[in-house]
Amino acid sequence: MSKSLSPSPLDLRVDIERIKSDILTLAAIGQHERDRGIYRMAFTDEDMEGKRWLLHRIEENGLEPNSDGAANISGVLKGKSDSPRIFVGSHIDTVPCAGMLDGTLGVVVGLECLRTLKAAKFSPERSMELIAFSDEEGRFGGTFGSEAFTGILTLDKVQNAVDLGGTKLSDAMLAHGLDPMKALESRRSPDEIDSYLELHIEQGPVLDESHLQVGIVSSITGLQSWSLRFTGEANHAGTTPMDYRKDAFMGLADFAHELPRILEENGGENSRATIGKAEILPGAPNSVPGMVEFSLDFRDPSTEILADLSLAFQKALAAISRRRGLKFEFNLQGEILPVSSEERLVSLLETEAERLGLRSLKMLSGAAHDAQLVGRIAPMAMIFVPSRGGMSHSPAEWTAWEDVEAGANLMLAALCQLGNQPLSSGQ
Amino acid sequence: MSKSLSPSPLDLRVDIERIKSDILTLAAIGQHERDRGIYRMAFTDEDMEGKRWLLHRIEENGLEPNSDGAANISGVLKGKSDSPRIFVGSHIDTVPCAGMLDGTLGVVVGLECLRTLKAAKFSPERSMELIAFSDEEGRFGGTFGSEAFTGILTLDKVQNAVDLGGTKLSDAMLAHGLDPMKALESRRSPDEIDSYLELHIEQGPVLDESHLQVGIVSSITGLQSWSLRFTGEANHAGTTPMDYRKDAFMGLADFAHELPRILEENGGENSRATIGKAEILPGAPNSVPGMVEFSLDFRDPSTEILADLSLAFQKALAAISRRRGLKFEFNLQGEILPVSSEERLVSLLETEAERLGLRSLKMLSGAAHDAQLVGRIAPMAMIFVPSRGGMSHSPAEWTAWEDVEAGANLMLAALCQLGNQPLSSGQ
Repeated sequence: MSKSLSPSPLDLRVDIERIKSDILTLAAIGQHERDRGIYRMAFTDEDMEGKRWLLHRIEENGLEPNSDGAANISGVLKGKSDSPRIFVGSHIDTVPCAGMLDGTLGVVVGLECLRTLKAAKFSPERSMELIAFSDEEGRFGGTFGSEAFTGILTLDKVQNAVDLGGTKLSDAMLAHGLDPMKALESRRSPDEIDSYLELHIEQGPVLDESHLQVGIVSSITGLQSWSLRFTGEANHAGTTPMDYRKDAFMGLADFAHELPRILEENGGENSRATIGKAEILPGAPNSVPGMVEFSLDFRDPSTEILADLSLAFQKALAAISRRRGLKFEFNLQGEILPVSSEERLVSLLETEAERLGLRSLKMLSGAAHDAQLVGRIAPMAMIFVPSRGGMSHSPAEWTAWEDVEAGANLMLAALCQLGNQPLSSGQ
Repeated sequence: MSKSLSPSPLDLRVDIERIKSDILTLAAIGQHERDRGIYRMAFTDEDMEGKRWLLHRIEENGLEPNSDGAANISGVLKGKSDSPRIFVGSHIDTVPCAGMLDGTLGVVVGLECLRTLKAAKFSPERSMELIAFSDEEGRFGGTFGSEAFTGILTLDKVQNAVDLGGTKLSDAMLAHGLDPMKALESRRSPDEIDSYLELHIEQGPVLDESHLQVGIVSSITGLQSWSLRFTGEANHAGTTPMDYRKDAFMGLADFAHELPRILEENGGENSRATIGKAEILPGAPNSVPGMVEFSLDFRDPSTEILADLSLAFQKALAAISRRRGLKFEFNLQGEILPVSSEERLVSLLETEAERLGLRSLKMLSGAAHDAQLVGRIAPMAMIFVPSRGGMSHSPAEWTAWEDVEAGANLMLAALCQLGNQPLSSGQ
């Protein structure tokens, strides 16, 4: 265990003070006094200021800065071969009233890894590229930057996507001197991507509650998002006997009551189902509800289980409708396919976590990430760090700096190993 | 069965054509082209126009017109003794987008009965008074006219009641030259009221579905209106495992699911419970609900059953909260005490319905009425006529003219009998 004169890059460690400083600097861009929340939504002035700061920081650290047609920000550490590259990244845009970590942490950690390697004069077998994807949080309804990167982006989306306030994506880009059509020219071919690694906060309670330091994501859950409607008959709450009623809300209550059974019968241990939204019409205390519109979000890492759940939900909806004299309708509002991490990358992360003595857990990601898009065309894996209390998308979002450091060192070790691998061992 | 030369007033019948004409004339006051709905909410220009029309019609028919400090409109048929009087009435104000019947039918039928008696030169033992109460529909939060009439009205309500748009009751009255303080001088003492009869549409489906002509109301249901809140923890719908959740909406679904059991175990055949309103926070499809605010309206004609139901609901709320790690709060928003019709008046209506050969049913009123207020200080009974499809508070509200005629003839017969009774038989 004695050090050689030329130390192995595997002995390199990140500088947590630099990570801290960058996180706090970015946190100040878009932070409101009022609620301490960060408002750096995609293609706002604040988001663009964050992008410019990041480009500048990339340059300062001797990496090669770049920005593609989707305004994805890159920083390249040149390797002996320039393609395929090893990618590391996440996103710096935020939801409204966000905390300071989320995607930003993954970008800053990626930057820290590449500048640590650069400073150590590490010369990888292939180039490494830090990437910060645009609009992961979906201001304009999707994961714009990683869709452009993977070629999933469509002309229709470029031309027609709008935010909740009615602002068009194309107008928001033009306002910053960006040509939206260029986003369609930002595709990287699968041949150009050796692997993609992303560090992210867990956004759930599992690591925190189990006092673990890092999660190694084996797959990212798929999801279906439905909007549903039960239609019955609005009536007077006093004059309508219970057995004359066609109460749409009671149909929803029946359905909600069936969710645990449906998950137990058809789901796996990682299945989730949520009714997050409901609107009752007419919505008066003394009216029997004539209509209820509600949402159903369900997730599982298995495509088969998602299909089984979908069928079971429809059966329950039909049975409840018959029993209560209601009509039901449902619409698939959104669908994200599950994606598995690359076996080779998961093994690498497990080995390195063990070597670094980290308490780790192989786990599922219940949230969607840029890695889910990239994973559809290239090998991908993710590192999670614990979210205090499972909080995210809130100023209360937090991860202990020790845990950030542990996760960042795992990323650095994995990048070293990938960078050391001769070209033939690639995908 | 041969007629005497001077026919008995019990052979008198209403003129359905006059009823029709008055209903259609009033329907035109406040009717919107757009939706054919009637907008004659209390103390609007339209309501005041309706009141003026009614006063004029009372006078035209030889009855003595009057308007008290609450703008309750009266028409008196003088009897041998002037007090206590036999009252008949309802209200002519409407909800927004109303049908043409509701309270208006009870007022027009009362008018038709008194003018029929007047025209037949019937001289009752005691005076009869038609009364149209102000604001039964509760634009200003209650049954203003019958509260003033019975002395339940408070100074606080006169000074502070506001409608949903923030307009004060007192300002609305002043705008029509009415002194709101005079409403507190409109009380009639119980000694002045021999009896109060009210005809109203059922507003429920029972008579219509059973092909009956009239309902004889034995009691008016009491009700409690609660606002409730479950508080749990808002979380990410993807990253939060099912058994880590404190899902406030699932608490509501559990509670709704318990309603039928609670009614079966603690209620009677006339018990009703309705969740008519619910708001979920944060209310996003991908968020586990952290809070849900909802309403509970429950009714029964027995005070004891209402108390039993209240206790059972609280037990269920507490058990669900413990099971799901939620907090619950509830507030009594409104309470109306049940009131029984006077036995003597119910018997009279049953006897007269049989004499007239009407298919009748002794039944409960599930809705609140002016009769509920008057019944707290004096003998009361109600006649229901069928509501087509149970519809009310909508332009689709309807009752066949034959049924209106049957109900009006029952009212006329009952008034004749009461008017013929010597003073000693009064309450």
